[in-house]
Amino acid sequence: MYIIGIDIGGMSIKGGVVDGANGTIVCKDSVVTKAAAGIDVLAADTAGLIGALLGKTSLKISDVAGIGIGMPGTVDSKTGRVIYSNNIRLVDAPIVEKLRKYYDNIPIEINNDANAAALGEVRFGESKDYKNIVFITLGTGVGTGLIVDGKLIEGNNSAGAEGGHMVIRVGGAVCTCGRRGCFEAYASAAALVRQTKAAMQKNKDSLMHKLARERNKISGRTAFLAAAEGDKTAAAVVNRYIRYVGEGIVNLANIFRPDVVLIGGGVSNEGDALILPLQEFMDNYCFGIKNGNPRVLVKKASLTNDAGIFGAASLIVSSVK
Amino acid sequence: MYIIGIDIGGMSIKGGVVDGANGTIVCKDSVVTKAAAGIDVLAADTAGLIGALLGKTSLKISDVAGIGIGMPGTVDSKTGRVIYSNNIRLVDAPIVEKLRKYYDNIPIEINNDANAAALGEVRFGESKDYKNIVFITLGTGVGTGLIVDGKLIEGNNSAGAEGGHMVIRVGGAVCTCGRRGCFEAYASAAALVRQTKAAMQKNKDSLMHKLARERNKISGRTAFLAAAEGDKTAAAVVNRYIRYVGEGIVNLANIFRPDVVLIGGGVSNEGDALILPLQEFMDNYCFGIKNGNPRVLVKKASLTNDAGIFGAASLIVSSVK
Repeated sequence: MYIIGIDIGGMSIKGGVVDGANGTIVCKDSVVTKAAAGIDVLAADTAGLIGALLGKTSLKISDVAGIGIGMPGTVDSKTGRVIYSNNIRLVDAPIVEKLRKYYDNIPIEINNDANAAALGEVRFGESKDYKNIVFITLGTGVGTGLIVDGKLIEGNNSAGAEGGHMVIRVGGAVCTCGRRGCFEAYASAAALVRQTKAAMQKNKDSLMHKLARERNKISGRTAFLAAAEGDKTAAAVVNRYIRYVGEGIVNLANIFRPDVVLIGGGVSNEGDALILPLQEFMDNYCFGIKNGNPRVLVKKASLTNDAGIFGAASLIVSSVK
Repeated sequence: MYIIGIDIGGMSIKGGVVDGANGTIVCKDSVVTKAAAGIDVLAADTAGLIGALLGKTSLKISDVAGIGIGMPGTVDSKTGRVIYSNNIRLVDAPIVEKLRKYYDNIPIEINNDANAAALGEVRFGESKDYKNIVFITLGTGVGTGLIVDGKLIEGNNSAGAEGGHMVIRVGGAVCTCGRRGCFEAYASAAALVRQTKAAMQKNKDSLMHKLARERNKISGRTAFLAAAEGDKTAAAVVNRYIRYVGEGIVNLANIFRPDVVLIGGGVSNEGDALILPLQEFMDNYCFGIKNGNPRVLVKKASLTNDAGIFGAASLIVSSVK
């Protein structure tokens, strides 16, 4: 079974043909996202990308089980409409209907990218044995995908699963959503960069300055790299950041008590330096953990670069099943 | 269909015979909880209460569709074991197995009291039309019952649905669970009393002093009553408390995007003085509410005094269905 997975992001639209049986990507391609160009352009560019993928693989559209699409924002999976996507600058846009003009006799499923990525870990990643998963992406924002008994928690009009917009510090840092103190405002890669810059400003001797000059930028990696070389200021940034991530994931673990919390997104590439202390935090602070409540594992998401394509494709696997 | 609902609390065990068809309580009774006396005494006292209810109604146990039990703490609904209940002082206690010695041929279901209360609102209260509900009790603690597509979110070993133990202020007030800054530590009735006492200590002229003297205690009502009479110190306490409750319920609404957030527990008796500002808070701060995401209603739970009995009975209605 072949599936087309489309990962629409703020910078590029990535697409791949996934062999559903083997869980491999047969072929992939991408085009630049023309954000702000509107839904018709987005649909045409996506259709063009799909056409290119079919051409490369010599598949006909009728050979494909379906087209799955993941994208940031609130996406109503039932109606196929983008309710609101800040990144792609769409409001109430009927994306599936627009795509039907190009591909009309084939299942097309769409969902939020974090939801898709969570499903992708179950269908194509290393979480096949788990039924209950809290997935979080630590990227530009903090996205969450919540799976209970193998199904996504989406909420009315698919407007739920916004765990990044859970306040962890009342009255704290301003969030793009209009509240103060959201998990996203402390635990995103962007927040980590802010925290890193603030610490660098206060500590001119920190190794972070040298690393940032060498790499010509301050990124989410700066503090982790300097901490690994023994820089105390950087270690304090990392520890505080991990504390913030830990508070948020313990919150979600207390609400869902899943099998596992999967960490994806750019920051997850820090690997054990991030995952091991988060597991320790979870083991110390999950509700009732010292009174017989079950442990919650913390793991790095297994699908990395192509997580978006696999996630999008998984929307079709679950709808075909 | 008759159902026996048993509501085990720290002070008393309340029981009732519920007419499942009419949603009425035919008869009720209670006994004192001998907390710390152990599981055998608790089971014997519960069995005795059930016997008394049967006697009063001239029903045989075979006339009853089942026995539902709600109690505080982590209760594994699948195994019928209390994993941990601080209030009743039980650890890993097989309560359903113990009750089987008295009543062996009848369905017995047990669950956490907030979970039961949430189901009770759907089966016997005014939430029959809702499929997706966040229920919170503002009592000694903050309990949550989470219903998605008509089913409870329980988590592994029923250890989830602990929304009261979601940190809303990192590093904040100490919580009984071992973390700092939990929703419960700011939004429970006990927290409201602490906030009230702190404000009274700073403001000796507040009307709250007079009200507390008249009633011989400082309670969760003190600030609400004084605020209603125009006391500014009390109004500040109430506003701040409502803000805390609001932050927590918006967090849960962003995660679940339910139809409604139902507020139960002692503080909910403040009615509109609590509910209306919470609705306003929700309408201002829910994620994407200004970009097309659906509104989430805030309502007072409809079952008041007998919520525990109805909730417990609802565990049987859902298992019989």
